[in-house]
Amino acid sequence: MSKPVFEIQRHVEFYETDMAGIVHFSNFFRYMEACEHAFVRSLDHELHGMLDGLETGWPRVNATCDYRAPARFGDLLTIRLYLEEIRNRSVRYRFEISRDAILVAEGAIAAAHVAITPDGIKAVPLPEPLKLKLQSLITDHNRT
Amino acid sequence: MSKPVFEIQRHVEFYETDMAGIVHFSNFFRYMEACEHAFVRSLDHELHGMLDGLETGWPRVNATCDYRAPARFGDLLTIRLYLEEIRNRSVRYRFEISRDAILVAEGAIAAAHVAITPDGIKAVPLPEPLKLKLQSLITDHNRT
Amino acid sequence: MSKPVFEIQRHVEFYETDMAGIVHFSNFFRYMEACEHAFVRSLDHELHGMLDGLETGWPRVNATCDYRAPARFGDLLTIRLYLEEIRNRSVRYRFEISRDAILVAEGAIAAAHVAITPDGIKAVPLPEPLKLKLQSLITDHNRT
Amino acid sequence: MSKPVFEIQRHVEFYETDMAGIVHFSNFFRYMEACEHAFVRSLDHELHGMLDGLETGWPRVNATCDYRAPARFGDLLTIRLYLEEIRNRSVRYRFEISRDAILVAEGAIAAAHVAITPDGIKAVPLPEPLKLKLQSLITDHNRT
Repeated sequence: MSKPVFEIQRHVEFYETDMAGIVHFSNFFRYMEACEHAFVRSLDHELHGMLDGLETGWPRVNATCDYRAPARFGDLLTIRLYLEEIRNRSVRYRFEISRDAILVAEGAIAAAHVAITPDGIKAVPLPEPLKLKLQSLITDHNRT
Repeated sequence: MSKPVFEIQRHVEFYETDMAGIVHFSNFFRYMEACEHAFVRSLDHELHGMLDGLETGWPRVNATCDYRAPARFGDLLTIRLYLEEIRNRSVRYRFEISRDAILVAEGAIAAAHVAITPDGIKAVPLPEPLKLKLQSLITDHNRT
Repeated sequence: MSKPVFEIQRHVEFYETDMAGIVHFSNFFRYMEACEHAFVRSLDHELHGMLDGLETGWPRVNATCDYRAPARFGDLLTIRLYLEEIRNRSVRYRFEISRDAILVAEGAIAAAHVAITPDGIKAVPLPEPLKLKLQSLITDHNRT
Repeated sequence: MSKPVFEIQRHVEFYETDMAGIVHFSNFFRYMEACEHAFVRSLDHELHGMLDGLETGWPRVNATCDYRAPARFGDLLTIRLYLEEIRNRSVRYRFEISRDAILVAEGAIAAAHVAITPDGIKAVPLPEPLKLKLQSLITDHNRT
């Protein structure tokens, strides 16, 4: 079984709740992305880079979330990131969001690596240094 | 093939975009929910009702979205709702979000019908009038 | 007394409420901006234009809001825009947000007109056609 | 001159930016509220309490912000809270938001202390323990 390669913690903010008294479901996608971005930063990689003079980015291809238990204002959430799949031009992350030992939500984000060309957005290979780091993390974690 | 049973339109707001110049992916879940709520209102049904003196609600069980094309500030989006599955205690809606003839995103939301009891949240049967309306809409649309 | 020069209506969305059961106060700034943008569009003016080959924009200098009454999920809000001040390089809008005859909030946004130069952001004069339209609207409304 | 009585730090998240490449102005109100809530928690006080069997809360009466410099994705912001005014039934906080030595924004939030009664929302006196703590903080800081 895979292991998490990164995690962050954050308190639920008041403005993230809705009138049902719990975190609005859309905000879990923001929690996942915040974790993804902190992870990429931890690898010393710039999210918005350049490739042959073109701006690059990571638009989302798919996002999904299963909700297991409600999260409330002030809860301290742990968001764990798993590397689900590393492809040539895209990455798929899986996430678990928990409060203490309680699983609150689990989800996934698939992001493509693209360059913004004069003719539009084009999928381009992952930056080589990033790809190597991601692959080594997968291997490390499978070994342990 | 199923047909949409409801649709809304809305312009992309400035605050829904991110620094990549496009609608942040989390906002598509808000578009879908806005369409779901307008649909339920159109059936003369209150989203937050009462059952045997208990408050009821519709927490999300799953939400998913596939992103096909970017949406930008000012775009007029059409969000179409399809009834994917009507179960005893839950509903699954499917959505297509498009700009003119271009499919921008498609997704789904599964929501459980629950009552807030002194012992916690419990799944309860769909309100009968709502269930009948939903079933008749499915049948109508399959016939046509 | 000044009169509104523009208005929009919108329903309060579920995701705009918080656990107190009312619209989160930060969202009123989004309502005001949505009204401002719809107003500028109604004048056939592009919010993000070009000036001598430089990108231009309208960063906010000040935003303020007084809250008079709560707004709730499903409420139909009317947002009215007033031209408070038109200066050489900035505009100040005032807004009233109401539900039926009830004043829910009133606020203001001051926005500077800037160009993004290689040396940073610089305040630049309002586009002449926009300035003339704004001034004629003020005059018209003062006359009536 | 008054001194800050509390501060928090947070990184700007990607979803807090807009297509102008900077933090959307509405989010500064969320930063200020996050700081206020962390401050109240630091005093061991529950934001949503009870008074004579009635639920209490802190609806906003006014919120304002002056924007001095843009904040961007990844910036580490410091939000400092100042006690501007402690009244019988309300508090006014002032905030400074900065990145390193650069002042990014300054604002204020005035919040009333209310109880939710069967006849509607009514302003009620601040909880005595909280009021005493706030007053001692003001005094301490004026002395130093």
